[in-house]
Amino acid sequence: MSDDVPLPGSASVGELLRLLRDGVPRTRNELTTVTGLARSTVRARLDMLLDAGLVSDGGNEASTGGRPAGRFVFNARARAVLAAEVGATHATVAVTDLTGSPLAVRRIEQDIADGPDVVLPGLVAAWRAMLAEADLGSVRLAGVGVGLPGPVEHSTGRPNNPPIMPGWNGYDVPARIGAEFDVPVLADNEVNLMALGEHTACFPEAQHLIVVKVATGIGAGFISNGRLHRGAVGAAGDLGHIVAPNAGDVPCRCGNAGCLEAVASGAAIAAALRAKGIEADTSADVVALVRSGNLEAGKAVREAGRDIGEVLATCVSMFNPSLIVVGGTVALAGEMLLAGVREAIYRRSLPLATGNLRIVGSQVGDRAGVLGAAAMVVQHVLSPAVVDRQFA
Amino acid sequence: MSDDVPLPGSASVGELLRLLRDGVPRTRNELTTVTGLARSTVRARLDMLLDAGLVSDGGNEASTGGRPAGRFVFNARARAVLAAEVGATHATVAVTDLTGSPLAVRRIEQDIADGPDVVLPGLVAAWRAMLAEADLGSVRLAGVGVGLPGPVEHSTGRPNNPPIMPGWNGYDVPARIGAEFDVPVLADNEVNLMALGEHTACFPEAQHLIVVKVATGIGAGFISNGRLHRGAVGAAGDLGHIVAPNAGDVPCRCGNAGCLEAVASGAAIAAALRAKGIEADTSADVVALVRSGNLEAGKAVREAGRDIGEVLATCVSMFNPSLIVVGGTVALAGEMLLAGVREAIYRRSLPLATGNLRIVGSQVGDRAGVLGAAAMVVQHVLSPAVVDRQFA
Repeated sequence: MSDDVPLPGSASVGELLRLLRDGVPRTRNELTTVTGLARSTVRARLDMLLDAGLVSDGGNEASTGGRPAGRFVFNARARAVLAAEVGATHATVAVTDLTGSPLAVRRIEQDIADGPDVVLPGLVAAWRAMLAEADLGSVRLAGVGVGLPGPVEHSTGRPNNPPIMPGWNGYDVPARIGAEFDVPVLADNEVNLMALGEHTACFPEAQHLIVVKVATGIGAGFISNGRLHRGAVGAAGDLGHIVAPNAGDVPCRCGNAGCLEAVASGAAIAAALRAKGIEADTSADVVALVRSGNLEAGKAVREAGRDIGEVLATCVSMFNPSLIVVGGTVALAGEMLLAGVREAIYRRSLPLATGNLRIVGSQVGDRAGVLGAAAMVVQHVLSPAVVDRQFA
Repeated sequence: MSDDVPLPGSASVGELLRLLRDGVPRTRNELTTVTGLARSTVRARLDMLLDAGLVSDGGNEASTGGRPAGRFVFNARARAVLAAEVGATHATVAVTDLTGSPLAVRRIEQDIADGPDVVLPGLVAAWRAMLAEADLGSVRLAGVGVGLPGPVEHSTGRPNNPPIMPGWNGYDVPARIGAEFDVPVLADNEVNLMALGEHTACFPEAQHLIVVKVATGIGAGFISNGRLHRGAVGAAGDLGHIVAPNAGDVPCRCGNAGCLEAVASGAAIAAALRAKGIEADTSADVVALVRSGNLEAGKAVREAGRDIGEVLATCVSMFNPSLIVVGGTVALAGEMLLAGVREAIYRRSLPLATGNLRIVGSQVGDRAGVLGAAAMVVQHVLSPAVVDRQFA
């Protein structure tokens, strides 16, 4: 084997692509120097990436006298990613490029309780329609990412005893979608994906981050050392069913009593308002009341924020995040919820852990989950090991 | 630049060393194939590592007819690591090889309250004596790792408002030790290092792990995705000063009331026993009473375990670890403490999060912290980026 002959196989093609993903155009010589690969190997690997369309001509470098060297640049439009966040009553569906930026987003109404054989074909139909409308029918797909409103075993993509998802337990989500699109299909809990979405799209510098979703239910997702923390069986972040200090023995839909969700979720706030003779059925009703200036609704949302903050205070002392992002429908009520959360956390957590802590509302709102689903796919399919296997 | 000439600089020398750290001897051809590096680069990098002693002759591969190729193997004895876990009243000091395995361990009595200008020279004297005794005086040092009984800003090695360490706040520990040994000096909280030690030495397969130390105080360390989770300012895992459900308004040495430490630490258990007329001053006294069959002491330790378990239950629901390791002096009382911890966690945590959860006693006992201090140094000094810089 001579150094003039490129290495057999595809080792390091993924590493080259990883370098180029920052969008900076680079010459062959620059890539050879940075990677330490043989020049012949860099040449062969770039040819593979050019053939696959993942890298394209990035123009010539500014001439310094000799013949200007050609530059190569990552082509984020070479593949499309299909992403969806499935909620209890609707789903957000998107097509993105290889940076996870949306090319098209759409909301579809569907009931998770109809089961996977209805819900998943609904997503597939939406993706197909969006690809056709956006004239992306000829673009190759990179992968599919789906967020679901319950615990998911990420390694298999199967829901794991999800409480509000009848018919979904153990269902092979990747197999069903993979029968339609012959690309990697990944699934995860939607709150994990909200955390990944906020981190990737808005707070890439935050290494330790908690994202809380306050909607019909309550959940949380963690980023630790810049990576999603899913836990041993994908059950991390189940904030809603932790015993809340002020929940007493209020019954919870999970079968226990005293859960945070039983007193501080959108559903619980609506029930508390109804008990006071105020008409409110859903989280959205609660938000509309707050926005219309209803004082009782505002007080109830703030109190829910305090309850959530009491439980989060323990998380802050244990986990020491630099940032907490509060999202979900109820967060649309604005500062009322955040004020309650902040009040309880600053009162209850250890001073060292709150010294530099920021507590903010979601920056991307109801797109956080679908952005996270796309980011999950991009992380996977562009990881050096997976790229090397693709080209092997 | 021809492919026959190795790359200038030292890029990828760290990557080669990383591959060899598994202890498997490999030929040049094997290393070329696995890394994708130019053969001339592999040759030059191996020469660098051989000159530095970090790689040595690993014998010839079994002959397959032609001239057998020489193999190269990681030399873990090429450098020594100095490690220490500093507790309130004593320190465990060790010299290890580059796998973090101890070559010598010693316990020295010293009071953390004497301040860094007494304690750190004490460590230095112990290391020097151990190096001389173990005939390691001529071995080059790789680095120094120190665990301290309070919050430490890991990036600077400075204690951050530690409550039981007068004179240590903001002290530049690396500078003081670095003046004696001209190698990287890293410091961290001792419970973080216990977590790293248990993970590295006993449970490398556990990706999500909580280590709890129950001694004079109470603290915890987390491993997330196989990496130590320190938190935004190194304050993660401060279990002892979380409000415990059953602590009422018992005053804590931190100035607050109702902290877990105020009811469940070794100091708190000893105080509770004294209130019943039983002589007990320290955690060690409590352990001796339990071991001698004192029923009150056994009951008190089990109750402390329940209190700790109540707080850990929230951590289990949030963090979903596969393993909890309980260490520290009070854990030496054996099954009494563990039984209380297990009882409360299994009662309070979510079923999905406890389904595959193991709760065990420490496997390395009072060496966990010093093993973690050594592992921290090895991780740092053998990381590819640091190795590349060393050889640049």
